[in-house]
Formats: sequence, structure tokens, C-alpha cells
Amino acid sequence: MKGIAYHGPGDIRLDTLADPGLREPDDVVVRVTRTAICGSDLHVVHGLPVPDRGFALGHEFVGVVEDAGAGVRRFRKGDRVLASCTTGCGRCTACRRGLFSACEATTAGGASNLFGFSCGLPGGQAEAVRVPYADANLLAVPTDLDDERILFLSDILPTGHMGAELAEVGPGDVVVVLGCGPVGVFAQRCAELRGASRILAVDLDDARLARARARGYETVHPGREDLGARVQELTHGRGADAVIEAVGRPELVAKALELARHGGRVSFVGVVLEPAPFFLGLLLMKNLTLRAGIVSPQAHWPKLLPLIESGRLDPTEIISHRLPLAEGVRGYELFDQHEDGALKVVLRP
Amino acid sequence: MKGIAYHGPGDIRLDTLADPGLREPDDVVVRVTRTAICGSDLHVVHGLPVPDRGFALGHEFVGVVEDAGAGVRRFRKGDRVLASCTTGCGRCTACRRGLFSACEATTAGGASNLFGFSCGLPGGQAEAVRVPYADANLLAVPTDLDDERILFLSDILPTGHMGAELAEVGPGDVVVVLGCGPVGVFAQRCAELRGASRILAVDLDDARLARARARGYETVHPGREDLGARVQELTHGRGADAVIEAVGRPELVAKALELARHGGRVSFVGVVLEPAPFFLGLLLMKNLTLRAGIVSPQAHWPKLLPLIESGRLDPTEIISHRLPLAEGVRGYELFDQHEDGALKVVLRP
Amino acid sequence: MKGIAYHGPGDIRLDTLADPGLREPDDVVVRVTRTAICGSDLHVVHGLPVPDRGFALGHEFVGVVEDAGAGVRRFRKGDRVLASCTTGCGRCTACRRGLFSACEATTAGGASNLFGFSCGLPGGQAEAVRVPYADANLLAVPTDLDDERILFLSDILPTGHMGAELAEVGPGDVVVVLGCGPVGVFAQRCAELRGASRILAVDLDDARLARARARGYETVHPGREDLGARVQELTHGRGADAVIEAVGRPELVAKALELARHGGRVSFVGVVLEPAPFFLGLLLMKNLTLRAGIVSPQAHWPKLLPLIESGRLDPTEIISHRLPLAEGVRGYELFDQHEDGALKVVLRP
Amino acid sequence: MKGIAYHGPGDIRLDTLADPGLREPDDVVVRVTRTAICGSDLHVVHGLPVPDRGFALGHEFVGVVEDAGAGVRRFRKGDRVLASCTTGCGRCTACRRGLFSACEATTAGGASNLFGFSCGLPGGQAEAVRVPYADANLLAVPTDLDDERILFLSDILPTGHMGAELAEVGPGDVVVVLGCGPVGVFAQRCAELRGASRILAVDLDDARLARARARGYETVHPGREDLGARVQELTHGRGADAVIEAVGRPELVAKALELARHGGRVSFVGVVLEPAPFFLGLLLMKNLTLRAGIVSPQAHWPKLLPLIESGRLDPTEIISHRLPLAEGVRGYELFDQHEDGALKVVLRP
Repeated sequence: MKGIAYHGPGDIRLDTLADPGLREPDDVVVRVTRTAICGSDLHVVHGLPVPDRGFALGHEFVGVVEDAGAGVRRFRKGDRVLASCTTGCGRCTACRRGLFSACEATTAGGASNLFGFSCGLPGGQAEAVRVPYADANLLAVPTDLDDERILFLSDILPTGHMGAELAEVGPGDVVVVLGCGPVGVFAQRCAELRGASRILAVDLDDARLARARARGYETVHPGREDLGARVQELTHGRGADAVIEAVGRPELVAKALELARHGGRVSFVGVVLEPAPFFLGLLLMKNLTLRAGIVSPQAHWPKLLPLIESGRLDPTEIISHRLPLAEGVRGYELFDQHEDGALKVVLRP
Repeated sequence: MKGIAYHGPGDIRLDTLADPGLREPDDVVVRVTRTAICGSDLHVVHGLPVPDRGFALGHEFVGVVEDAGAGVRRFRKGDRVLASCTTGCGRCTACRRGLFSACEATTAGGASNLFGFSCGLPGGQAEAVRVPYADANLLAVPTDLDDERILFLSDILPTGHMGAELAEVGPGDVVVVLGCGPVGVFAQRCAELRGASRILAVDLDDARLARARARGYETVHPGREDLGARVQELTHGRGADAVIEAVGRPELVAKALELARHGGRVSFVGVVLEPAPFFLGLLLMKNLTLRAGIVSPQAHWPKLLPLIESGRLDPTEIISHRLPLAEGVRGYELFDQHEDGALKVVLRP
Repeated sequence: MKGIAYHGPGDIRLDTLADPGLREPDDVVVRVTRTAICGSDLHVVHGLPVPDRGFALGHEFVGVVEDAGAGVRRFRKGDRVLASCTTGCGRCTACRRGLFSACEATTAGGASNLFGFSCGLPGGQAEAVRVPYADANLLAVPTDLDDERILFLSDILPTGHMGAELAEVGPGDVVVVLGCGPVGVFAQRCAELRGASRILAVDLDDARLARARARGYETVHPGREDLGARVQELTHGRGADAVIEAVGRPELVAKALELARHGGRVSFVGVVLEPAPFFLGLLLMKNLTLRAGIVSPQAHWPKLLPLIESGRLDPTEIISHRLPLAEGVRGYELFDQHEDGALKVVLRP
Repeated sequence: MKGIAYHGPGDIRLDTLADPGLREPDDVVVRVTRTAICGSDLHVVHGLPVPDRGFALGHEFVGVVEDAGAGVRRFRKGDRVLASCTTGCGRCTACRRGLFSACEATTAGGASNLFGFSCGLPGGQAEAVRVPYADANLLAVPTDLDDERILFLSDILPTGHMGAELAEVGPGDVVVVLGCGPVGVFAQRCAELRGASRILAVDLDDARLARARARGYETVHPGREDLGARVQELTHGRGADAVIEAVGRPELVAKALELARHGGRVSFVGVVLEPAPFFLGLLLMKNLTLRAGIVSPQAHWPKLLPLIESGRLDPTEIISHRLPLAEGVRGYELFDQHEDGALKVVLRP
């Protein structure tokens, strides 16, 4: 089959790869119908250390069940399914807590349980992909929803929602969302859905700010305006009820704490792996709550799927480009360089 | 001063009443600029036992501080203010828990702490009214908000929000709201604000159902359609995540429980004082949570005021009639009979 | 094999029954080492309608895995295991919410998913028993815990804990527990563990009250003392923060609501299937929260097992009688009649 | 009157100070009957910058109302009262949220609202002290509780409880408490009260560890044992459910995060004002919740007072020394140097 394969930092290729097959009774093989490129795929391409080479990238995909193991109860050949980016066994202590990303079975021995980060679990930017523990990691797609509307339930829509949830966004809150990329956009939508009175969208990209403004949000370009002053002005000098960091830059850690009001909540959904300057005193003096996390999309599906079904959420709004899988390498370039206003690139196998 | 006074069941009159004055250092006298008629005022007029006669009715009012006692810290002459329908001292155990309606000081000896239910605490359908424990019971009105946008923070908007909060409405929920009167409308708005995926508005009045449909809600006229079947259909046979009873009829208690899904939540904000048939077994077999309550608007203001300020909530949408205070008795008739599509009647002193 | 079988109301017998075997790949067969008689077994014996006859009773058992299907991942032959009284698939929407008792797979078509209530799922008062969806419904027993310390995790310890959890018992609360039977005792222990300042144990049986007094609880015999007055006295006239009904009598529904303070929480874990007089007005005037439920022990194991392991909970305290399985019918009599101070009867196959 | 006054870093003296009087109608003057020395008093003595000199130190005191302003509703001359260490107006947005320490009125213009940190609000290590907004900041002491049992409700018992609350300690949790000083001891007690299955008490002082061991806790001296390894061993390799930092050293920030399990909660109640190395990646990879805060004792009294009344908490256990106020300077030395096993020093005016 064809797939976008990783061959080392900066080196990805459209390859012919081995067709996936069932390995365990809980496995399913999915024929991919739509897949997308995520910011964390770029991290791999830019050199985030991964153990192998030659595997298909991608953890956002929707498709049709082609083959199902004997232990699979909820799915069978022909079912349309969406996979979670991160796989859990559904049975261990962590999965029972809803922390599928920390599954004790699938991360045993330090294995990665994210699709497309190793040869052990090749990704979905390919014509087909094996999904382990299918009952725990697949969502049945309602017949009246097309692929694109469901696709982002694999990762970034749940991640955005997690940002709003970890920051405990509730009715009346003034919410700052740092970043207007795909995750930031969904964090804004979910903050809105949870009753925020005002959303401040922050970014350095004018096109992205314009999109936020069109949606009715307040916008701030921190290179041209004092973000702290604006937050103070909109909150009677108190600070934001909730702050969601959706960029992933270490210098924004302290900034996020600074913007929150006394008793406020701050969540981090952008990936920051380097040490960041941190002032516990600020947390202490302001009685803050801080949370961060790797998403377990499975835990968010019961809340998000009905919102897509009823039309209150339309995740396709972020799609800027659609390409055949065969042009996937070009898709990475567009996305990486924000070329042609690229916000999200979808691939068709 | 002029006011709408209660003189016995079915007997209300535009009277000349004694001007209110300060009695305690924590009191404020408010010159009323807008007031409204509430369903619970009708209960009094229809014969709900009250201890006195000759007092002004009404617990929904906004106005300007005319006089403030020496102990009042947060308000002074000239401030625009909105009062809570129910008064608390702000200092006792109940008030500290946010249960102002159960204030140990203002309900001592069985006193009513609702405006307009006794001579002890005359109401706001008058030119002026005394507000005890002003610091605890008044909201400062932002200068750019007109009276009508703020008026319903006195009771029915918080009551509707309480309905959604007690039913723990959250992202993705399918919510049934029984009743499309003023409280029902606000319960629907607040369920929407808290992320409901679908709202089923239920009423017997076609005009009210049409309003709900225009807002994008599903509507059911239970005299013409099987409500239970409709809920099952919209929830894949599971039942509603949350049910809010906003009518106040005993036969709806069992119905509400029946509509909820396993693990669902049911709130009652319509006033039902008669005993109702009740099946604990249903609660048990379905792992339900039930809540009811008398609202403490003070506890909801921090969430609702910012939503009015930012425009996400516009409570004026329910106002169907505006009359001078002098025509208040006529206002009661319109409201009671649903004449001329009456949904909410506002009076101007 | 031998087992205690149901043959109709009032008719249970020690029978020779067919040995259980695996039916589905997710099944396990457990060789039972200890089992117990529960109050709901008595309901069946007393005539609660069940669809079949000739099946083994009992839903409280611990044992050793004798055989495991190919789809079972967490257990293998020789493992010591404790089963949940109620079986879920672990994969459906209800199980994912922790509501295993409402599993969409195991209750499909109206089937009972409680062990020992039908021929479809025979019980554990036998030498062996088949457990479906073993990964979801069995707990691995730590090697250093003997059978009796773990046995009540099958049902009544989680049920008691659920009572305290549904009533949101927290630090400082004054808690009334109606009933000092096995579930009542565990509700008291769990209320204590969650920080209750005082526990009022209520029962009509003096021996059971004496046990509660010895533990340091306040006790009330409602036939000899005014329970309401006592609660008022201990709560400065406010009422109990939490009330747990662990008897299962309809007339206690209204009593429980009456004992709770403004803003209090009431849970029902005693089984009441007949309609009960109910006053919504009380719920309304007192801003109460009411909850009831059928337990899903699986959801409580992560909290309760560590407490047994560390010794803070010793569930064996309620065992009053130990008999061989062959004397199980006599065990039912002892338990039913409270003969010889019977509180809990354990059987050894 | 006599009092322990601050005259600069390292310079405290028993002074004759001006008698306090009422300034505002909400004020009360309290005749102090017991007061204590807190770790944060030592911070001042050691040079934490404060704006003034010549004021009485101390924010832990209990006494009798000597005089009450006209606006005070809940207290009068002769009442026994306990004060909160931090004063709020009880009426602003922050106080309504229970964040008295962030009161918008008492911290206006950057003022300190902690007793004994400035001339504006002299402390309680004196014969008498003025308490502003008395209704919000005083607790009525039940007649049958002596001064010493109530004294630590002023600060350190609520602080310890806040540590357990911010770390969301619940039934079954394994909890690490860093530090066995007065706050650490109370954090341990409150973790126990909230249902912890195991508590790991960590300190470098053997006498303090011995006290913890006697209470039934696991103890670790990190200079002699690998704390991380011990936590792993007690948690089946998962890490602690909750970690409470009650020492206040920057290097423990990263340590606390390291000890927590996936999905765990970490609270900081020790005061760390210097920047600490911090790894957001750890928070992210482990889905942690972090909280810190300055205590608002008022918000904890409803939970803690009943526990003292019922005897489940006996805060006097930490008192190691009792001295007359006149020997207060000596008391500071004992406490500062841990001389003679000093854990907590109480002064009698």
C-alpha cells in the first residue's frame, strides 16, 4: 500500500509499505478514507527523537473496517470508524480512569501508544492501518456524518476541549486562549460552548486573528498591543477566569499565570518539553490551579460527538487544504510554512 | 407613593402607600425605575396564604439608591442597583454557603425574606422600596446596561440558570425543558450556554413553541405528540442527559424521571407544593440525581452579569408588554390570562 | 457440582447442578472459595419475581480462575479473583461512564446482569461459576489478603460507599445513616472515612445499635426516641448535612428528606420498589439533592481496595456466621430471622 | 498594653503599645486570651520586607470581645471569638468566592490584610487587638471548647486542610506529605480524615518522624532513604495519588511533581517565593493538577469546627511549649531553633 513514511529528520517520502494485518484478537484493520497532518507530525519531521524509521506517519484518520479479530465485539467489516490518536487497552487502572494515553498495557516497556511514532504502531497517513484494542480505540461513525466532520475527533478537537475542560471554563468566564492554530481554534469553540462570556484570541498571525474576530472574539496581537493591559481592561482589573495555552512555548508559561485572576485556572495543551521559568509564588499568591495533559480522545467523544451531530460544532471550518495522499509530502510543506494560509491539510488516500 | 398593593385573594389595587425609610444601618431605600410581574406574584393573588394585607407586591425591580444607612459599604445615593428577590444577611452559615434564600437572620421566626410577600418586606411594584442588608442583596448595575437588560437578574434569569446548573447541564447533553414560560425560556438559554447539543422545548402553547423553534430547539406539544418517544428517538434510545421541570405541576415529577437516561439528572424549578406520586425505584434503577431549590440570585450574578454585558444573553427578549405602574392591575390580567401573547409584563413607575 | 438453587418462593435447596463452562471468549470459570448471602438473595426467596428456576443463587463470591477464554487479557488459570455482583461489558457507553450495572450489552433484551437472578447468569453460592466479560468484572486479589477481607467488595461494601458518595459526605459533616444492617454498617464506615464529624446510627435492633455505639457513633432507636429532635440538637437546629437510607422502606423516604438541612444531600441505597409518599415542596424549600442507585462495584474498587490493603477498612467485622456450603439453606434461615445475632453469613464450598 | 513588637530584622521586643480602639463601625476589639507563634512570623523576623516597625506581631489568637462597633451584627461584648489570620470584607467578589485572602477592600492599594505584618493591622501577640470587618473574620467559639483547641483554626489547621483539599485527597489515596512541621502535621491529619489509605510523612527531623510513625503513617527520611523508590513500592509502581508540599523549599517543586502518579494532584502550601526549576513537560506527560494558595480560614471553619467539637481533630497535639506573653521573645527563639523539641509555642497574655 502507499503511505507517507518517515526516514529521518527532514526526510519523509511517499512509499510503498507492507499492508497491515491483524496481530492480536482485539485488532482491527482500517482502510483509511481521510487522514490529516498534525502539528505533532511536524515535531517528528523536525527531529523529535523516535526509535525507528520507515513507518507511516499520522494519527488522525477515519476509515472503514476491513478486517476484525475474533475478540472484537463492537465493530465488524464495513463499519465506518474513527480512531483515537492514542491507544489504550480499555481495561487497566489508567484506562478505567479515562487516561487512555497512560494505558499500562500499551505503554509497557516504554512503548509509544501514539499512532505514527514508531514501527510498532504505524500511522494513518496510508491506505490502511492496524488498530489494536479496537473496542477501546474506535468510534462508530454515525451514517449521516461525512468523514471530514468526524476526522478531528481523533486528536485536535478533543485536545481543544481538554484545554477548556482543564481550565474549568464555565458560564460567564472571561477566557484567554493563547494561539489560534487548529488546537487554539477548537479551544476557543469549546470555551464558547461552555459558556464563556468573552474569549480573547491571541496570535501573531493576522489572518488567524481576523478569523477569530469574525467569530465574535476579542483579538490581541501581542507584538502590537499589551495583552496584560487588555485583559485587565476587560475584567475590571481582576484578570482572566481561565487561560488556555495552545501554542507550546516555554516563555508563555509565566505569561499564562500572570494573566489569570485570583483563584483562576490555567491549562497547557501546547507541548512544551524544555524547562520553563516558573514562579510558584505567583501560584501561591493567586490561588491558581494549573493543569496540563496528553489527550485521551475516547474520554471526550461522548461530549463532542453529539455536538457535531446536532451541528453546534462544525470541525471542518479549519480545513484549508485538501490533497490526495500521493501529494502528502507537499501537504507537510504547506502546513509547516503556513503557505497559502494553510491551517489544516486533509489527505485522501 | 404609588404601588400595587395586595388586599386579599383576587384583590389587588393601585394604592397610595407610605414612603419607605431606613430602619437599620444596613438598609438602603431604592427609587424604582423598572419592575416586573412574576408568576409567583400570581400565586399570591390566587390565594397562596400570606400573613398580611396592604403591602406592595413584586420582587423584581431595578432602581437608584435614594438613601443608604451608615453600615452600607458598597452603595451610596445615586447608584443604580438591582435587587435580589430574596434577602440574606450575607454573614450567616447559610449565606456563606450561597444559600441566601435560607438566611438564618432574615428567616428567623418564620419570616418571609422574599420581597412583596408581607408587610415586613414590601415589594418593588411601587415607586420606592426598602432593601435590608443592602451590601448582600444589591448588584451594582454597569453604566452601559439599561434597566431592562438587568431587570431579570432579580429572579427568573437566575432561576432558569439554577435549573440548568442543578441538572448539571454540560457539553453534548440532550436536555428536556418542560415549560416555555419565562423561567423555561431562560432555562433553555442557560442549557444552550452550558453546551447542550440539543434542547427539547415542551409546552402546550403553540406561540411559545414557535418561539423555541425559531431559536433552533426541538419542540414537542405533549398533547399532540409522544414526548417519551421523541426523547428516545433523539438519544439513540437512552433518554435525556438532563431534564428541567419549569412548569410546576405535580404530574410532571414522575414524567421528568421517566425521560431521563441512566445516570441522568433532573431539576425542578417550577413550584410544586402538593404531594406528588413518586417512584424511588425509578431513581434507584436509573441511578438518577434529583435537585430542586429556591433561587439565591446573588450566587448566580457573577456568572450571568458578564454574559449580559458581553451580549451572549439578552434577557429583554421575553418582554411582551410595557405599561406604566399606574396600569399595573391591568398588567396582572394580561399576564395571568396569557392575553395578547403576554409572556412578561414590565412596569414603569 | 453442588450449589444452593432456587426452586420458587420459599423453596431453596442444596442441589447438584451442571458444572459451568466457558461460552464466550471473554468468559472465565471461577472455582469458588468463599461466598456469602445478601439481603437481595432474601428478596428472591421471598418472592421477588425472577424468570427461571433451578439456578444457583448468590452474587457475592471470591475464588480462583479455573479456565479463561482466549479473549481474556488480565487473568489466567490460578489467579485469585473477586467478582462484581453486576456484570458489564466494559466497552459500551454506560460502562465507560462507570455505570456497569446499566451495561447496554449485558442488559440487552431486558436480561438481568446480576449473578444469581436467572438461569442466564447463575450465581456463586456454588462450587463454580461462569463470569462473562471477565476483564471488566473481576478484581485481582492481592496475595496477602485472605478471601474474607476481600469478599464484600463484590457488592455491599461498594454499596455502603456509594451511599456515602451519593450523599457527598465530606469533612465535618453530620451524617444520619438509617439502618445498621450490613450495608448500613459499611455506609457508616465510609462516612467516617470521608471525614464525617458525627454519625447517627439508627436502627430498631438493640444489638446492632450497641455495635454502633461501641464504634463511637451516636445511636438512636426511633421507637424510643425522637430522631428528628436528636438531629436538631446535634446540628444547632440546622439538620443533617447528609442522610443515607440503608433500610429500604417507603416510609423512610419522607423521613430522610425531613432530617436533612437546607442544602443537604440524601442518598437511598436500600431497595424501595413500591411508590412512596413524596413531597417535592420539601426538596424545593430546602434546596436538597437526592440520589439513588444500583451499585457498580467496579467503579469503587480503586478507592476501597487500598483501604483494605492498608487496614483502614476491615470488612470481616460484619461476619457473624461461617458455614459450609452444604449448610447454606440453614444459613439463609439464620440470616433471614436475625437468629443468633446473625448479621452476615459466609459459606465455604 | 503589652505586646511583642517588631523593630527590624532580628529585633523583636516585649513593648508597651497603644491600646487598640474601634475605628470603623464594623470593627471589634478583642482581649486576647491565647496567641501563638507561626512560621510566617519567623519570616518577618528573618527579614521578609514589611513596610513598618513598631507593630505587634502575630496572626493566631483567640480572645473575648471587649468592644464592638455599631455595624457589627454577629458579636457583642463578652463573646469568645477566634480570628482568621487574614481579613476580608465579606462582601466583595473575592470574599463571595471564599477567597478572603484576596479581598478587594482589605488589600486595596497593596495593603497587607494579614494581622501582624504592618502598623495598619497590628497582630495578636498582645493583650488586645482590633479586628476589622468582624462579622466576616471572627468565629464564635462554642462554650465547651477551651482556647487551645480552637486556636489553630486561625491559620495553620485551615492551611493543612487546604493542602489536602487542593490535592483533592479522597478515599483510598496514597498521599505524600513533604514536611512534618505544624502545617505538615495538620495536612497529614486532614488527608487521613479525607480517607487516605496511606500517608507518607517526610522530614529530616527524627523526632518529628517518630511522631508520625506513632500515628500509624509511613515515614521517610530522604537523607537516608530513596523517597521515590519508597513511593513506587507502596503504589505498585504508579506513584502517589496526591502530594502535599508543606515545607516551602524551591527544590521540592520538581520533586513533588516527580512523586505524583499519572493523573495525580499536587498542592503547595509551604511558602516558596524564589523562582523554582519547573518542567511543564512533566505536568503534560503525567496529566497533573497543581494548586497552591494563601489560606482563607473562614472558608474552612464550617468543615473543621465540627471535627474539633466531635473530637475527631485535636489540634492541641502540636503544642510543645506554653509561655506567658512576657516571655514571648524567648518563645521565638525556642521555635526558631527547634530547641527542646519545640513544635508550636503558645503564649498567654
